[in-house]
Amino acid sequence: MNFVNTASFAAQMDANDLLKNFREQFHIPKQSNGEDVIYLTGNSLGLQPKTTRNYIEQELKDWETLGVEGHFKAKNPWLPYHEFLTEQMANVVGAK
Amino acid sequence: MNFVNTASFAAQMDANDLLKNFREQFHIPKQSNGEDVIYLTGNSLGLQPKTTRNYIEQELKDWETLGVEGHFKAKNPWLPYHEFLTEQMANVVGAK
Repeated sequence: MNFVNTASFAAQMDANDLLKNFREQFHIPKQSNGEDVIYLTGNSLGLQPKTTRNYIEQELKDWETLGVEGHFKAKNPWLPYHEFLTEQMANVVGAK
Repeated sequence: MNFVNTASFAAQMDANDLLKNFREQFHIPKQSNGEDVIYLTGNSLGLQPKTTRNYIEQELKDWETLGVEGHFKAKNPWLPYHEFLTEQMANVVGAK
């Protein structure tokens, strides 16, 4: 691919971006003029996934209705919580 | 006070308990028969305060609308968050 320093080339690249739909999965803060911010902060605090509230609500509901028994009886039991993350985190860091 | 081993004495003690209204501030899990559990777990996971959702929603909203700028611009800015806890925690642990 030959890089071309034009807006149309950039727009074409965006149109071909296989990952572009992931953008819709995050809350993007607004500038004071109402437009989305350009958000380059990836190593500190990323954008909030739109699914975050639902995940937190699941845990709040389990805490509310189960109390300490949520360690064993929650939808995602808290005691082995780290086990739910093992496979995906291994993929992220290249572990086996 | 002379302890008396009767239900009426216990009910009287409950009626005079200055802290009893705090019970209403927590979500109490139910037994299978629909009654509140008797919850003695205080050193592991306490009952969920009814205010918890609102506190979490405040932080979710700030993350959603501010992104990383929440460290400085959130209602409760994240960077000095520990400072908000200092006075109350000092009271809890008897520090000055």
